[in-house]
Amino acid sequence: MKLIDKINKALEDDRCFWSFEYFPPKTQQGVMNLYDRIERMCNLGPLFIDVTWRWGGKSSDLTLELCSNSQTVYGVEANMHMTCTNTNFDLIRSALEKAKDQGVQNILALRGDLPDNSVEFDPEVGEFKYATDLVRYIRKTYGDFFCISVAGYPEGCLGPDDVDCDIRYLKEKQDAGADLIITQLFYDVDNYLAWIDKCRAAGITIPILPGIMPIQNYGGFKRMTDLCRISVPQAIWDRLEPIKDDDQAVKDYGIEVAVDMISRLRDAGVRGFHFYTINLERSTRMVLERLQLVPTVHEVRPLPWSPSLNEKRAGENVRPIFWRNHTRSYIKRTALWDEFPNGRWGDSRSPAYGELVHGEQVRLAAGQAQKKWGAPTTVDDIKRLFVRYCRGSLDSLPWSETALQPESIEIQQRLAQINARGFLTINSQPSCNGVPSSDKVHGWGPSNGFVYKKAYLEFFASPENVKALLARLEGNPTATYYAVTKGGELLTNCQEDSPNAVTWGVFPGKEILQPTIVERVSFLAWKDEAFEFWNAWSSAYARDSASAGLLGRVSDDWYLMNIVENNFQKDSESIFELFDGLGQELADE
Amino acid sequence: MKLIDKINKALEDDRCFWSFEYFPPKTQQGVMNLYDRIERMCNLGPLFIDVTWRWGGKSSDLTLELCSNSQTVYGVEANMHMTCTNTNFDLIRSALEKAKDQGVQNILALRGDLPDNSVEFDPEVGEFKYATDLVRYIRKTYGDFFCISVAGYPEGCLGPDDVDCDIRYLKEKQDAGADLIITQLFYDVDNYLAWIDKCRAAGITIPILPGIMPIQNYGGFKRMTDLCRISVPQAIWDRLEPIKDDDQAVKDYGIEVAVDMISRLRDAGVRGFHFYTINLERSTRMVLERLQLVPTVHEVRPLPWSPSLNEKRAGENVRPIFWRNHTRSYIKRTALWDEFPNGRWGDSRSPAYGELVHGEQVRLAAGQAQKKWGAPTTVDDIKRLFVRYCRGSLDSLPWSETALQPESIEIQQRLAQINARGFLTINSQPSCNGVPSSDKVHGWGPSNGFVYKKAYLEFFASPENVKALLARLEGNPTATYYAVTKGGELLTNCQEDSPNAVTWGVFPGKEILQPTIVERVSFLAWKDEAFEFWNAWSSAYARDSASAGLLGRVSDDWYLMNIVENNFQKDSESIFELFDGLGQELADE
Repeated sequence: MKLIDKINKALEDDRCFWSFEYFPPKTQQGVMNLYDRIERMCNLGPLFIDVTWRWGGKSSDLTLELCSNSQTVYGVEANMHMTCTNTNFDLIRSALEKAKDQGVQNILALRGDLPDNSVEFDPEVGEFKYATDLVRYIRKTYGDFFCISVAGYPEGCLGPDDVDCDIRYLKEKQDAGADLIITQLFYDVDNYLAWIDKCRAAGITIPILPGIMPIQNYGGFKRMTDLCRISVPQAIWDRLEPIKDDDQAVKDYGIEVAVDMISRLRDAGVRGFHFYTINLERSTRMVLERLQLVPTVHEVRPLPWSPSLNEKRAGENVRPIFWRNHTRSYIKRTALWDEFPNGRWGDSRSPAYGELVHGEQVRLAAGQAQKKWGAPTTVDDIKRLFVRYCRGSLDSLPWSETALQPESIEIQQRLAQINARGFLTINSQPSCNGVPSSDKVHGWGPSNGFVYKKAYLEFFASPENVKALLARLEGNPTATYYAVTKGGELLTNCQEDSPNAVTWGVFPGKEILQPTIVERVSFLAWKDEAFEFWNAWSSAYARDSASAGLLGRVSDDWYLMNIVENNFQKDSESIFELFDGLGQELADE
Repeated sequence: MKLIDKINKALEDDRCFWSFEYFPPKTQQGVMNLYDRIERMCNLGPLFIDVTWRWGGKSSDLTLELCSNSQTVYGVEANMHMTCTNTNFDLIRSALEKAKDQGVQNILALRGDLPDNSVEFDPEVGEFKYATDLVRYIRKTYGDFFCISVAGYPEGCLGPDDVDCDIRYLKEKQDAGADLIITQLFYDVDNYLAWIDKCRAAGITIPILPGIMPIQNYGGFKRMTDLCRISVPQAIWDRLEPIKDDDQAVKDYGIEVAVDMISRLRDAGVRGFHFYTINLERSTRMVLERLQLVPTVHEVRPLPWSPSLNEKRAGENVRPIFWRNHTRSYIKRTALWDEFPNGRWGDSRSPAYGELVHGEQVRLAAGQAQKKWGAPTTVDDIKRLFVRYCRGSLDSLPWSETALQPESIEIQQRLAQINARGFLTINSQPSCNGVPSSDKVHGWGPSNGFVYKKAYLEFFASPENVKALLARLEGNPTATYYAVTKGGELLTNCQEDSPNAVTWGVFPGKEILQPTIVERVSFLAWKDEAFEFWNAWSSAYARDSASAGLLGRVSDDWYLMNIVENNFQKDSESIFELFDGLGQELADE
């Protein structure tokens, strides 16, 4: 979708909106971390994200990949930067074709830095002199297909003397076909507002989004503002000086500055704000929270998981619960499906999941594994890690890169208890019986609706523990389960292969949406992936070490099991009662 | 499905079951009435129904049609009688082919009466001498396709002296391939139980269902038992004699006799009971109720409407609410669909409804119309009829052949009120927020589930009343409506064409079932049918009469409207509050 349409809609509704800019990290682990960050930050409801650009096969491919994956996997619209200095028509054309192929429809057209910081354009090398040329080329070649944004320089591209000249260039960019303007970062709000007036006076009518960069640390801030010749009000320097060596204090003050700037801009009628995140999350989050720029549940969560913006998957609205913390893997393993389930999980879905690619879906930084999880040598050591994760004192486990889902916070003590007894949970949801769709924790979907969940637990457990649990489940009319070993030995009380809807919502004027299901075939596909994490973890230790041996044995012998308590009108306690007295307590608990 | 499989399953579960026998009526109106009766009696949960047979194009076609329609429209398994006296292979073969084509898979193979009550078999005319020959022929020709039942005569086919010989014949029928035995009616339980013992001793192992005919009136009972040489215990005659002229007293005693017989049979281990209903409903119903042989909700209502047994429609589990009281018409108008909606109402359904066939779907007996509904000359006269119907003092309206749906009883006073004010309701359901699926009134579907309904009203209203109502609906975030005139002028606040699920259920281990929806295209198809009833009613009066004129004007000017209150967590009162103070009260209310 074109950004300008989303922006015009927001402006029409007189609604504030915001966007986040990221740059492609240099390492594979950095890229993985950025993906997780983008996914989390999507909950802050950005209207779109930007990804910066550097020419060069690997680098520009990564920008495109980040844009395309963010759209497909996290369902957030991406605006891809593209520079034109020292390029030619063929290069640009080829990059735009790739973007089009990948469903990226928004381009921020930039001139880009000249080599060696020279200021001279070399007509021998490049066929584009100014960003305007790139805008014109894109419009000429692709008509209305792309939404084109351009950069604005409230303090002049080359300094304050340049401002009027810059505004003329900006008007030219608009005339060449630009749809909107995103500005350079700035800290002088009065100057910015005056510049806006000048732009409007010069006939610039397209939307202008101010660039906001929360100050992160003193040194970086000083270098950046010097380099870009950005004027910083003396009052800011005065406040920074005494705290310049205290990074946390600087960050906190940076948040204060950004909050103050946005408040003033908002009072002046500005509605859209573009955050230069430098790939950091906290400051941007804090600024938005302080300003109570909190998106409605409806905007952020049309479904309990992020619907893909990939055109092919547009109708998709049902997924198995198993990949909840592994969206990218799910998207990848279903990429070759011809049809995506819409409304129900049925024959419409292709029967086969794509192969699990070793080391890609299942990724652990070996060094980090030892640092985070130590070197477990007993089952109790493993149980302790899971208990700590449930209690929030450990921020990740191989199966969960991030903290417990917010909805599971209400059951975290109960989760910790069963983990202590050897039922190692990797996924869970509490029951939910007709909560308004606007509920901050459980809500999703259109307003005036009601959402529901069946309590769900997924865990690894030893054969003895599974046996004891199965005895207890016998004759239970409302709990259904699947348990499977790495080797594929399946135990279940589900008589049919029909999927079980575990999350659904009822909305005015609509069919029931049932976006999350539990189902045999999917569980068996997920099983391989879930067990693979034991191997990945194990390989962080020397092959003949006690830790590697332990993790390998657990992986070989234990079951992966899920239980659904189908009576969603009971509270979550009833699924946990199944475990009361089972397993063995931790000695030190 | 083959009866014997259902019967064996019931016997395995040690569960009582029952079946109803009907005969094809002689008039078209009689056939229509029988259909309504079969539909109602399906709520009594028969394991199957029987339809008797007479050779002759029209007569045997009607038997087949009754069987096939009962399976397709009402979802009850049918057992088709077939006689073989004075027929030949070709005739039988052709009748069986037709049955197979229509999905009828159960045949009661009978010899049938010889012409002129002669007792001699004429080899010149018939190729089948005994029912055994027919059984053998069906097995030889169709293998296991048909379930074959045969008749048993506990008191001898030709009288008591014949019993032993008859048991030999019965054994032959079993050896020829019969699957089960349904007996002639009887009243001597001791004799019956002794006969069963003899049958078992003779090697008859297939299930035997006793035939029960509740006594309906003295004369008929006497003639029938004389003709069939059925012995009636003297005690029964003694009780009948003093009440023989009081039909109601005879019927009541007949119920008592049947209850007593079935109790004794049940104590002796009998589980299945075959009722000779002679197309009557009350006695059979009373007998089952007194014996508390009430089927579970799950057995009678797998969905809120009767799922078709037609193989082509096997997956169908979503229908529009509009045809709720007009199942046959819906089945007919969708007969040519290639696919039936399964799980959701989507593109899977064929886009077009079949044409409305005048005088077939919309059928009113003209004479009855005047008798039942008088000759209305004012709108108030019409309102009064609708009010009486809501209050239960009128048993039908053109749009509703039977009384108010049981689920609507709880809102009948409120319905009466809005009808008195000129909102003439033809369909309604109260809201229902997660009631157990075993609930006697609202329940349907598998056990341990929960069912839901959005409150729904469908009614005719004058343009002024519709206008006033629309003003009130403006800005209401949870009520959605469609209103349409006979000419097709449509008013709605539904922005999308998406269907609205108004009945749904949540069950262990399953996707959400949403069997009833409201939707624009279907409503427009139903509209023609709904308005056609005004014409049908109007044509019961002389063309230039005041009544015909009034009904015609209402049909031409008024709207058909439906409203869904999407907030199903509120009680039904909230949909009725929309009408408070609207319209005009009846003068005499």
